[in-house]
Amino acid sequence: MSKKNSQINSIISTSHIEVRYAETDQMGVVHHSVYPIYLEQARLDWLKRIGMHYQKMEDNGIILPLNKLSLEYKKSAIFGDHLEIDVSLSNLPKATMIFDYTIKNQKKELLTIAQTTLVFVNKHTKRPMRCPDHILTLIENASANN
Amino acid sequence: MSKKNSQINSIISTSHIEVRYAETDQMGVVHHSVYPIYLEQARLDWLKRIGMHYQKMEDNGIILPLNKLSLEYKKSAIFGDHLEIDVSLSNLPKATMIFDYTIKNQKKELLTIAQTTLVFVNKHTKRPMRCPDHILTLIENASANN
Amino acid sequence: MSKKNSQINSIISTSHIEVRYAETDQMGVVHHSVYPIYLEQARLDWLKRIGMHYQKMEDNGIILPLNKLSLEYKKSAIFGDHLEIDVSLSNLPKATMIFDYTIKNQKKELLTIAQTTLVFVNKHTKRPMRCPDHILTLIENASANN
Amino acid sequence: MSKKNSQINSIISTSHIEVRYAETDQMGVVHHSVYPIYLEQARLDWLKRIGMHYQKMEDNGIILPLNKLSLEYKKSAIFGDHLEIDVSLSNLPKATMIFDYTIKNQKKELLTIAQTTLVFVNKHTKRPMRCPDHILTLIENASANN
Repeated sequence: MSKKNSQINSIISTSHIEVRYAETDQMGVVHHSVYPIYLEQARLDWLKRIGMHYQKMEDNGIILPLNKLSLEYKKSAIFGDHLEIDVSLSNLPKATMIFDYTIKNQKKELLTIAQTTLVFVNKHTKRPMRCPDHILTLIENASANN
Repeated sequence: MSKKNSQINSIISTSHIEVRYAETDQMGVVHHSVYPIYLEQARLDWLKRIGMHYQKMEDNGIILPLNKLSLEYKKSAIFGDHLEIDVSLSNLPKATMIFDYTIKNQKKELLTIAQTTLVFVNKHTKRPMRCPDHILTLIENASANN
Repeated sequence: MSKKNSQINSIISTSHIEVRYAETDQMGVVHHSVYPIYLEQARLDWLKRIGMHYQKMEDNGIILPLNKLSLEYKKSAIFGDHLEIDVSLSNLPKATMIFDYTIKNQKKELLTIAQTTLVFVNKHTKRPMRCPDHILTLIENASANN
Repeated sequence: MSKKNSQINSIISTSHIEVRYAETDQMGVVHHSVYPIYLEQARLDWLKRIGMHYQKMEDNGIILPLNKLSLEYKKSAIFGDHLEIDVSLSNLPKATMIFDYTIKNQKKELLTIAQTTLVFVNKHTKRPMRCPDHILTLIENASANN
């Protein structure tokens, strides 16, 4: 555990999402408020990949609310697009987890770059907490096997 | 309480909602999945009008999930429309509350007709329950004062 | 074309959707306004199955707005559920297409029954139109091969 | 017009939004993807305040898609909250408009800080363009009257 907060081998997971009709707006493109939902889906896939099941975490009294969100929209997604979302974590978390994302379409065009910061929070006290050890272990294992 | 389930004087409440940009789709109109959200907002206003505060009800262990929903779309709402939603309840509830709705735009054109059925459910046991007496009383009072 | 509006062999398509976190509400279940989006996704899959690509249809000047929607909610979907949505069309369309749906979870529990009516509309005049012949042909072929 | 891109008197507009039930998630708070929709509503109110009507702009061939979005979530909004959103513009726009936001609840607690960058785009060519002169004039007038 001496590497806490130091760099790790980036753990990358890739998710695939097809754009829904209801996600478009009258500009004919995906409304910008939909992207945080895509990112969330990709992030939950990342967690699953390393062996964390978000619902179980919540059931065990830990929630992971979003603290910061930044998005840069380079190109629009449109209805029917098959999006490929790469998520990566580059540091061992202490009190927060910082994820980086890229969203590409089926032509491999870069649509969006994003970053989110999540906070470990005790579900009952609503107070921030440190990343639990068993989660650190999962991350270290995933990083080692990368 | 002898009138249970019999007709009452309809209790009508009117809500006003302005269509948001994010609610449109690439057809240039409000996506059909948004209307149930408008109806919910109007229904919660109706409850408030007769003295029920939905959040307090939930805090007191009663939830009111939707059981049935039917919508007829006659004309589209568009971005910026100022919608007027009429909600009415025509019967004293037993285990369910049935609300009727009309949605009009600022030109008084009829856009949508809808009906929803809600069920009284015990939040903890998740089992259906009868409409609590204090809610029946609120409804009877509102009906009498109509 | 003499069978217009008569019964056909039901054309059924099955879609799979995983419930997103953002689709839940504070009751801890999927908010009822999300189901129309699931139905739409399943319906578009159905169209694809018989060889209709919705975007191409819109590009060719035909839109298919929803005219009627009815849903019966029997059991809630929750975060992470893997939903199975069956869509079927049972009649040759004239001016409208009527689809029936069932939504089940991964335990094969029936969550929702629904029906939607869609109208063929000329994108430019915004006027209703008959189901184009090439679409009728696609439906008849799919029904015959069923 | 010599002040172009220099500081102006900040033009601030305040919007009021009531949190909808459907905007909550199973954490019992407003899902983070809803805030960009609140910001948009507040921004459109800002535009209206200085005399720009977004729909008219789109009808005149100018669209204002989002280019960058950043949000910092300090405290959660919950169902029924009456939010107060302050929007301000501090610079004369050239090709982009940068808005700053704060979201507070009815207790004047600061919930969210945000910034968005919007790009002027020609609706037909989809190419970026400079802020049109008549919009600059509206902004200068609003700034002078502040």
